[in-house]
Amino acid sequence: MNPIKGVVFDLYGTLYDVHSVASLCSQFYPGRGLEISMLWRQKQLEYTWLRSLMGSYAPFEQVTDDALGFIGKQLKLNLTSGTHEALCNEYLQIKPYPEVPAALAKLRAQGLPLAILSNGSRHSIRSVVNHSGLEPQFDYLLSVDDVQVFKPHNAAYELAEKRMGIARDDLLFVSSNAWDASGAHHFGFTVCWVNRTSNTFDELGQRPDHVIAGLDELPALVGGASA
Amino acid sequence: MNPIKGVVFDLYGTLYDVHSVASLCSQFYPGRGLEISMLWRQKQLEYTWLRSLMGSYAPFEQVTDDALGFIGKQLKLNLTSGTHEALCNEYLQIKPYPEVPAALAKLRAQGLPLAILSNGSRHSIRSVVNHSGLEPQFDYLLSVDDVQVFKPHNAAYELAEKRMGIARDDLLFVSSNAWDASGAHHFGFTVCWVNRTSNTFDELGQRPDHVIAGLDELPALVGGASA
Repeated sequence: MNPIKGVVFDLYGTLYDVHSVASLCSQFYPGRGLEISMLWRQKQLEYTWLRSLMGSYAPFEQVTDDALGFIGKQLKLNLTSGTHEALCNEYLQIKPYPEVPAALAKLRAQGLPLAILSNGSRHSIRSVVNHSGLEPQFDYLLSVDDVQVFKPHNAAYELAEKRMGIARDDLLFVSSNAWDASGAHHFGFTVCWVNRTSNTFDELGQRPDHVIAGLDELPALVGGASA
Repeated sequence: MNPIKGVVFDLYGTLYDVHSVASLCSQFYPGRGLEISMLWRQKQLEYTWLRSLMGSYAPFEQVTDDALGFIGKQLKLNLTSGTHEALCNEYLQIKPYPEVPAALAKLRAQGLPLAILSNGSRHSIRSVVNHSGLEPQFDYLLSVDDVQVFKPHNAAYELAEKRMGIARDDLLFVSSNAWDASGAHHFGFTVCWVNRTSNTFDELGQRPDHVIAGLDELPALVGGASA
């Protein structure tokens, strides 16, 4: 393996828990928080892929909004505009996984440049990262807004290579989303899949270079490979 | 609306029922046929979109095979290679919806060219259509194999326009898949969404021109619009 010269993180589902919104969903729809949150996330992802393929990009906030609109109709949730807005706003304040702040601090101490490369808009990324107080840990906050196509399109991954000025095979790309890890590996990054909940890796003809169960395992992995 | 000069059908889920495979699934996994069939179909679709976005096209049979492999691991089905093969072969023999043969015969009598435009490979399309005895009803069997990218990419829809020699807005595109109807509408077809089971249309910024509850309603619609 090449020595690692920088680390690129996915945001949604990797550093931050998209199912943070489940508790607010539960306040509006008791007992259904996780169901709603999971279907919403699934539809949000589908819409990013479909819009990219159709050549009909829209910013992540709109896709998130549209996906909630669909789920609301499908599940007959009788979403008021107030509830709809409150739930979408919650997506701007999702929480990092518990082990993330300490892991980032350790990586920071190792001196490698750290980046987020996300399907989120610039506004979404900044909101989430600021709200968690973790902005000082990142050298780059990169949004697919700049290329108007979502991951796993190569143009999205290329953003990290270009902005960081580091060749793809010297960058470690870290994602919990198996489809994202697959796209990143196909693009040419060295890839670490974060598998917190014993999931099955997707069958897209790619395999991650590393698998960890949480970000707490990352400093040792990076320390060994960048030494 | 422009007069209709030809009709283009989606295959999987529109003319033919993808959940035909559920009964064979139930033979191997009693009581779980529809669950397995639905998850398998969902993953199959995801993989067509993801591979297209990654620029890593593989034929529909392989994607179907890979999706079953994933579902087998995720649901811990202990799929033997024999069962795996039997289930994938069943996808080559899925059945048309009950009203389809009579509706196609009526459309045929109206004298418009009829086509299938499918994500299936040439082999898959021919197998399914031959097995059902409906091949004589179609003038064109068009596979995305020829453009190496799946729907809803514009290049896939363009195949119908080019091969049939009919402008997109003179063609009626018929699909039960809301994402496919959306992509086709975005491309410029006149679109009819077949909504057999009171589904919710996807929020991708598009709306179908017509909505019917089954193909039995199509001859009247086409007759009126091509007159």
